[in-house]
Amino acid sequence: MSGVICSEHITSMIGRPRESRLRRISKKVCSSESWRRRLPITIWLPKYNIDYLIRDIIAGVTVGLTSIPQGIAYAIIAGVPPQVGLYSSIFPGVVYMLFGSCKDVTVGPTAILAALLAKYVAYSVDFAYLAAFLSGCCILLLGVLQLGFLLDFISKPVISGFTTAAALQIAATQLKGLFRISGSSGHTFVSALINFFSNITTVQLWDTVLGIATIISLLVLKRLVLPVSATSSHCRVVTARIWQYFVRARNALVVFACTILAYILHLYGRTPFALTGKIHGGLPHFGPPPFSTRVANETIGFEGMLSVFGAEGFVMPLVAILESIAIAKAFAGSTSVDGSQEMLAIGFCNMLSSFCQCMPSTGSFTRTALNHASGVVTPAGSLFKASLVLLSVTLLTDAFYFIPRSTLAAIIMVAMSSLIDLKIIKQLWRNCKLQLMVYTSTVVVGVSAGLEYGIVAGAVLDVIRAMYIVARPNVTTHTFKVGNRDCVCIAIVGPLSYASAEHVSRMLRRHARTNVIVLDARHLTTVDIGVAENVISVILELESNHTFLLWNFPDKIRALLEDLHTGFGSRFVTGPSIDQHILGLDIERRDHVY
Amino acid sequence: MSGVICSEHITSMIGRPRESRLRRISKKVCSSESWRRRLPITIWLPKYNIDYLIRDIIAGVTVGLTSIPQGIAYAIIAGVPPQVGLYSSIFPGVVYMLFGSCKDVTVGPTAILAALLAKYVAYSVDFAYLAAFLSGCCILLLGVLQLGFLLDFISKPVISGFTTAAALQIAATQLKGLFRISGSSGHTFVSALINFFSNITTVQLWDTVLGIATIISLLVLKRLVLPVSATSSHCRVVTARIWQYFVRARNALVVFACTILAYILHLYGRTPFALTGKIHGGLPHFGPPPFSTRVANETIGFEGMLSVFGAEGFVMPLVAILESIAIAKAFAGSTSVDGSQEMLAIGFCNMLSSFCQCMPSTGSFTRTALNHASGVVTPAGSLFKASLVLLSVTLLTDAFYFIPRSTLAAIIMVAMSSLIDLKIIKQLWRNCKLQLMVYTSTVVVGVSAGLEYGIVAGAVLDVIRAMYIVARPNVTTHTFKVGNRDCVCIAIVGPLSYASAEHVSRMLRRHARTNVIVLDARHLTTVDIGVAENVISVILELESNHTFLLWNFPDKIRALLEDLHTGFGSRFVTGPSIDQHILGLDIERRDHVY
Repeated sequence: MSGVICSEHITSMIGRPRESRLRRISKKVCSSESWRRRLPITIWLPKYNIDYLIRDIIAGVTVGLTSIPQGIAYAIIAGVPPQVGLYSSIFPGVVYMLFGSCKDVTVGPTAILAALLAKYVAYSVDFAYLAAFLSGCCILLLGVLQLGFLLDFISKPVISGFTTAAALQIAATQLKGLFRISGSSGHTFVSALINFFSNITTVQLWDTVLGIATIISLLVLKRLVLPVSATSSHCRVVTARIWQYFVRARNALVVFACTILAYILHLYGRTPFALTGKIHGGLPHFGPPPFSTRVANETIGFEGMLSVFGAEGFVMPLVAILESIAIAKAFAGSTSVDGSQEMLAIGFCNMLSSFCQCMPSTGSFTRTALNHASGVVTPAGSLFKASLVLLSVTLLTDAFYFIPRSTLAAIIMVAMSSLIDLKIIKQLWRNCKLQLMVYTSTVVVGVSAGLEYGIVAGAVLDVIRAMYIVARPNVTTHTFKVGNRDCVCIAIVGPLSYASAEHVSRMLRRHARTNVIVLDARHLTTVDIGVAENVISVILELESNHTFLLWNFPDKIRALLEDLHTGFGSRFVTGPSIDQHILGLDIERRDHVY
Repeated sequence: MSGVICSEHITSMIGRPRESRLRRISKKVCSSESWRRRLPITIWLPKYNIDYLIRDIIAGVTVGLTSIPQGIAYAIIAGVPPQVGLYSSIFPGVVYMLFGSCKDVTVGPTAILAALLAKYVAYSVDFAYLAAFLSGCCILLLGVLQLGFLLDFISKPVISGFTTAAALQIAATQLKGLFRISGSSGHTFVSALINFFSNITTVQLWDTVLGIATIISLLVLKRLVLPVSATSSHCRVVTARIWQYFVRARNALVVFACTILAYILHLYGRTPFALTGKIHGGLPHFGPPPFSTRVANETIGFEGMLSVFGAEGFVMPLVAILESIAIAKAFAGSTSVDGSQEMLAIGFCNMLSSFCQCMPSTGSFTRTALNHASGVVTPAGSLFKASLVLLSVTLLTDAFYFIPRSTLAAIIMVAMSSLIDLKIIKQLWRNCKLQLMVYTSTVVVGVSAGLEYGIVAGAVLDVIRAMYIVARPNVTTHTFKVGNRDCVCIAIVGPLSYASAEHVSRMLRRHARTNVIVLDARHLTTVDIGVAENVISVILELESNHTFLLWNFPDKIRALLEDLHTGFGSRFVTGPSIDQHILGLDIERRDHVY
């Protein structure tokens, strides 16, 4: 292998000419291209044509049919009135059409956000609208300040563990609806299970039968695919395609069938199932989100509401971005996702739609996958989805009265089962047990103490794990002889962060047997002040019996050491070979003695 | 430079034969040597002799003379009765004599711990005893579980910033005592200053004069050294030595002088100064620490007391260990400090002394320095210090009545001025601005919101800073040609933690121009699962136009990649040269085409 190896920090690898930073930023801000990227509709709308329109309508209607039952179901999880879930499937979608950069992403209420919201809505429904507004503001702020890199600190095992915990918790809270047992549904997995088992004697036969029948039919429908081969007849191909749409709209169809059943039974004067009940349809009340509310006949001001959200409240915007960006990446294919733009889009979605009685919303995995599979071409698909849901919330609310609750619970439980990722446990077990511990902690804390605490516990443990790895930097040692001197060359690689301070001084002490200790710093990038002080004190301590040579130190680190201890300069040596410097020591000493 | 470079993880560098882990631990637990290390008195007591005794008595008495005024002063900072400060200078010291491994460390109440304690004592003095007990338990637990490495995550700038904020806050709260102004002293630096300036019209002349006179005399006494040369007469040498003891006991002497002054004025019927007042001397009440207390006529149980401490309560044991270990290290000289043993010692000190009405205590920097300077030989010095303080608390409490409060305030302010470290600001400014930001945040949050929040904010920012550095791993690139192929070799160094996932995939995409991309993993230590997934997806995405060669991957990382994506095996190559593998590609392709 020939050629010159050039070690360089990554930012200089872009090869961008060195302009003044201010100029670069101002150029970026002023160019029309960058403004168009911030409003992606200006890019795709001019190219829109009739073919796109048809395909977007088909996808929009398919997704809309799923959005209606899911919207109602997630509203029930959060504890808000069902129409709020529907509104949240309408308005954020329209906003996303303007700002969203990823055609597949479908914005709306999600089960996880609804589960996080539930404990605040227990006080008052006003918290749902304020949560949407504040989450929107937080996300926008992160997007504008380009703080997206903070999300990199939430690792895959933590996200996966959080999703699993959320899925378990949401499924557990649906047990109440599925079996129509009494008691509260509980706000954590554990409390939901306790509630379930302590009220298990109140199980209602017909709700249970309907719920379980719904689960089975959804699972069967999902797996039934009409096989089509190249030799199939045209008729069969058409049938297969129709069947495919049928399968994709299975949630809506199942709800439709169960609602019809409940309605017919109602006509015969029977209501064996718990029903969704009256929904206040029509358009929402447009206006700013509530900055004060009434809880138990007391008025709580904005500060009081903020203190109810507390620090845990930040988990909602965090999860909203994480969900949305993860989904955008999953469906972006070979194009890279503009994280900042996604944050702006989701931020605006939440902030603006909080003026239309919406709960927090973000990209939904199931509906995005459906959108993608239905062949959506542009974000305009969201508009058609929104129109369908809007139609339903204005015209069909009387029909929604008859949707059995156990059917909705069943739909949620089936959706949750697809979120649980067991493969990663096997992969982590085989490859990295420490990361498995992080995953397990996230799940365990999430299901027992609450989802917010789960994600925080996971992130903290993960940072400790990563810092522990960094605290034990990679070191290559190399012992050799020059003349009759035993020498050791210690090459330290990577950054020396403060967490490695103790470790580095222990390591240097361990080589106290050899005569000359060479520190090779070619691959040293940064050194924290605490580490530098420890290194200096070990060198000063061992120097009575040993000779230290500091070889090839980068200028910045050399300046730091000389600043901390003046008179350190004589120990620094540079050059490709260390042997001559070690031989030089003998000459110096001889000069000194004679 | 000759010889074979052996890259190895650091744990394998100790050269210890590979025993089973269980056997190693059991060996360690059972050996009498390791038990003796846990009870260091068994090591030094058998060697004790009369010479040691004399030197320990001299040091003990010198330190004791400082411990008396400091004990009273720190009790006033915490808001506990003055005798509690004295008890805390007695009992923890005796316990440390048994368990402590560092002869110089002097355990007792410290200004920072007292400042942290003050807000809890504002409810009830019982919180002081319970805080000592619980801090002791926490520290013991950390010591027994060998979790000392967690302290490495508190970096030098954070500790320094915290100390500075604490010194500023404590000095500010003493303004009230120094000038005898009315109003409360405030619990943060900012509130103390606001209090001071809003009550500045209530300044009392004589307290102010006495306080400022005390400050000046302390500063002058500290700097006055009698010069002794080799030719000095015997008489002069003796005078100089006596003067030295005089200087070391300056705190006690100044208090003595001011107390005499106050007493004489009292005899003449005048009390121009605020005095310490009645101290309930004698022995403390021995018994378990209080697990319930009364606040405002309501009984608070153990759980209630715990919730008053809250999560911020953990800062007390944390600071206690940090102070103590930092001090032990500063005076250990060339011997290394056994962190676990220090934790056990400080843990026992606090836990046991909470049975004798003591507040939390730890190693005190000023008294440890004095102990060292006074020539202490063994931890027995603590016993003599404790005896002197015990004598004073039983016999001298009537005299303590007359100690002017402004004198005590002056002593504290002078002690605090030595804690503020301004040098580090200059060093950080020159060498690392990001660490300066961490330092500044710690100070600013500490003085405005409270010391506990300062240390937490600093630690969190520092972790983010360190993780950000890790998220941009060091990369060396090397472009070369083999035949007519443009090749690039990307060598990644160090661990690839999850925070670098996005960065690594961006970096790989940037090299999409070249024909062959070689990933050199010789210096790669660990790869997190998220990064591995990103690397795989980028490789799969770019592979249609490029050839990827994964060169010299460690077995573990190779297994991880193959586990995540089966059929990845063919891309891995090993060997000292990459050229032959690239030439091999041409042959393969030729075979494929013809």
